Amino acid sequence: MTTSSKFSRRLMLSALGAFPVLAATTRFTPVQAQRSGDWLPSWNDGPAKSSITDFVARVTSGPDFVPEDQRIATFDNDGTLWIEQPMYVQLAFALDRVRAMAPQNPDWKKKQPFRAVLEGNMEAVAKSGEKGLTEIIAATHAGMTTAEFEKITSDWIATARDRRWKRPYTELVYQPMLELLAYLRANGFKTFIVSGGGIEFMRPWTERIYGVTPQQVVGSSIKTRFEMRDGKPVLFRLPEMNFVDDKAGKPIGINSHIGRRPIAAFGNSDGDLEMLQWTTMSGGPRLGLLVHHTDAVREYAYDRKSHFGRLDKALDAAGPNKWTVVSMKTDWKRIFAFE
Amino acid sequence: MTTSSKFSRRLMLSALGAFPVLAATTRFTPVQAQRSGDWLPSWNDGPAKSSITDFVARVTSGPDFVPEDQRIATFDNDGTLWIEQPMYVQLAFALDRVRAMAPQNPDWKKKQPFRAVLEGNMEAVAKSGEKGLTEIIAATHAGMTTAEFEKITSDWIATARDRRWKRPYTELVYQPMLELLAYLRANGFKTFIVSGGGIEFMRPWTERIYGVTPQQVVGSSIKTRFEMRDGKPVLFRLPEMNFVDDKAGKPIGINSHIGRRPIAAFGNSDGDLEMLQWTTMSGGPRLGLLVHHTDAVREYAYDRKSHFGRLDKALDAAGPNKWTVVSMKTDWKRIFAFE
Repeated sequence: MTTSSKFSRRLMLSALGAFPVLAATTRFTPVQAQRSGDWLPSWNDGPAKSSITDFVARVTSGPDFVPEDQRIATFDNDGTLWIEQPMYVQLAFALDRVRAMAPQNPDWKKKQPFRAVLEGNMEAVAKSGEKGLTEIIAATHAGMTTAEFEKITSDWIATARDRRWKRPYTELVYQPMLELLAYLRANGFKTFIVSGGGIEFMRPWTERIYGVTPQQVVGSSIKTRFEMRDGKPVLFRLPEMNFVDDKAGKPIGINSHIGRRPIAAFGNSDGDLEMLQWTTMSGGPRLGLLVHHTDAVREYAYDRKSHFGRLDKALDAAGPNKWTVVSMKTDWKRIFAFE
Repeated sequence: MTTSSKFSRRLMLSALGAFPVLAATTRFTPVQAQRSGDWLPSWNDGPAKSSITDFVARVTSGPDFVPEDQRIATFDNDGTLWIEQPMYVQLAFALDRVRAMAPQNPDWKKKQPFRAVLEGNMEAVAKSGEKGLTEIIAATHAGMTTAEFEKITSDWIATARDRRWKRPYTELVYQPMLELLAYLRANGFKTFIVSGGGIEFMRPWTERIYGVTPQQVVGSSIKTRFEMRDGKPVLFRLPEMNFVDDKAGKPIGINSHIGRRPIAAFGNSDGDLEMLQWTTMSGGPRLGLLVHHTDAVREYAYDRKSHFGRLDKALDAAGPNKWTVVSMKTDWKRIFAFE
């Protein structure tokens, strides 16, 4: 957090950075980019990179100029900003929580889908379907205050490790996308996350990792209830869905939280189709972009038949809508900062 | 809007105004305030004004310093930023819409509560209760796209006049509160509206009038549905409540939209009680403030028994919680800019 606020302050003083909170990661210094003149050093030159820089040039000057307060860019999270294989990170969190909470819930040893989780039987977990998943989410995401959940999430994200890379998930974010976030902000954009993931699961770390403040995070949510506990007001998390920020829910979430239509949207799956439609099919210069997972060696290769992050309809829609399709294998020099 | 963006640009260049969108109203120029040294010229000196300036001094330097990204201030709208008598402005809008839509709905002549509206029988409208009001809201606020509703609202707010002052409602905003908004922003605060009113009813004009961007407006909402119409994506407004941003709903709306707890909250009625509790009962320097309508001559005098904007429980809670109670009669030099 110290590093982060140091960057912020430095950028506040720069002519480009007239924003209260700015791109601030330990992996990429916008100031360096300013000097070299290339904000996207991890992108190979080619049509994907050009489509981004051309779009930014177009909306920041000339006949297609867009005022700063309308430069809204929305980013999906899972598979667009960080990894989503072999499973969504938030699902890994939920399964870890089941294991951590098992001693307090002895009946779970006999009760599905919890038993399957505790036995590591992922096939049985998957077989429990949406009903099973909902039970897992309710048991692990509800029944505490928002402050308690924030602490649980923050502790987990600080200690959990991905099995393949043996690194915190917050290091498994895509370096080219961090550069893109910073580049857009330096050009007067406001960057939002619009994710199917839980809004309160993301907010504790998005500012530190992506430079995106809590108020610029849109996501799925469960209901909460305001109540007084020991004379103190709390918000208590209830085992009931409030909003699913996925597919046709994304334009709804955008409208509810932002109240303006984005002019650029970034996704990687069919869950982002409607967000890209809503963003790009509205006249004027627009940028729609899909991250295509094509690199089985450096990350993963998947699309039309994947269980997480399926990219099928949206891939078919890319051509007719002139969306940029980024091949991770050929368009990205680096995928992670640690490479 | 031209004036507004001119102010914005000017402020962007000033050392104090490191924000993309800033206080910008035609009635108050923060630059003037900067020169005179008094950001709150329409406030009489006294405990109410001091409680504000003391709080701001306290959180911007010294041992109680609060970093800028945590300087969140939330404002109720009806009765706190603009008038709410003889009825909520949005209700006046709904009744006007019933009249405007009547030719296309000939059955309304015989059907309550519409008949009562068309006959100007406000007693019968009131008697139709929550059920009647819901029907009026559904008929006037749903059944069109969000873009269409934005146009209807914008056209109405530009032409409708309050009966007592014969002025647009957007001139019936409280000058001292406009100054307060600008003062807080100049001190690194982010100012949010958190209103029981409709989020999409407010957003078309809050930036121009209050300097509050659409994304910083939190309010009540109806459900919307994403769909393609003639090959274009739209959000269609449905006759179904989504969220009521009032009373215990306000902390929930704040948590959902902002994701951070405010350190200052401003209201005027029991609808703001929980917002003030949530804001001030959290440790550290906090400011809770209630606008008390005490000026029957220059505005209105009402509190415990009012139909709109009842201030009863919250007034009782002010003492024990050390909330500032502003008497419009004695604490405000001017109420409106045109005085």
